[in-house]
Amino acid sequence: MKSVDPSRSRPGDAAAYYRCHVFCCINERPEGHPRGCCKERGSVRLRNYMKARAKELGIDGVRINQSGCLDRCELGPVMVIYPEGIWYRYDTLEDVDEILQQHVIGGGRVERLLLRPEDGPK
Amino acid sequence: MKSVDPSRSRPGDAAAYYRCHVFCCINERPEGHPRGCCKERGSVRLRNYMKARAKELGIDGVRINQSGCLDRCELGPVMVIYPEGIWYRYDTLEDVDEILQQHVIGGGRVERLLLRPEDGPK
Repeated sequence: MKSVDPSRSRPGDAAAYYRCHVFCCINERPEGHPRGCCKERGSVRLRNYMKARAKELGIDGVRINQSGCLDRCELGPVMVIYPEGIWYRYDTLEDVDEILQQHVIGGGRVERLLLRPEDGPK
Repeated sequence: MKSVDPSRSRPGDAAAYYRCHVFCCINERPEGHPRGCCKERGSVRLRNYMKARAKELGIDGVRINQSGCLDRCELGPVMVIYPEGIWYRYDTLEDVDEILQQHVIGGGRVERLLLRPEDGPK
């Protein structure tokens, strides 16, 4: 099993524009929605912190974006990191720091925060 | 040169949650901003069309998301497709149809709409 699907790249494809591209869901659903949403669980603050911290650390080739609904609402706040396609659930600024240091900079994984496909919600 | 950086995947990484994950910038800058923005060039309509059309076509394993600023404003409206990390500039519903058919479904490239790293804006 691989997170990157090499069958989707093609000879002649350009180099990556961002070495590491992070998308943090900040979608908001109406209050009381059964799925909940990343925004009500603090994703905006967490994403803003991650963006600012990445800048402070001067990490090259990385972009921290906000995104619309990634459709894993029940598990949120969630982020996905490409091209490797790794998903995390994160709750605190310390979680963000660990993802930045261990994954974004170090190229490793933060095992305790990983989301796997079988985690759903499907 | 490859769009997918295999050095970022690790043994034991989970399978991809989405086979093909599209992010369409819908960022809005103040009117008259020298960089312009994807929103003022119609990105919201284009992204909504792409999402609806992908659903109509019943394409499996694909998600069409909106995102914050992808920082290639001058070239917009822009989208990036992961895990392959391919960027497009797109202006019309016909462009969207071509990207869906040729790239998302067919796994090819729409050469006339491709953005390469050297296109900037850096």
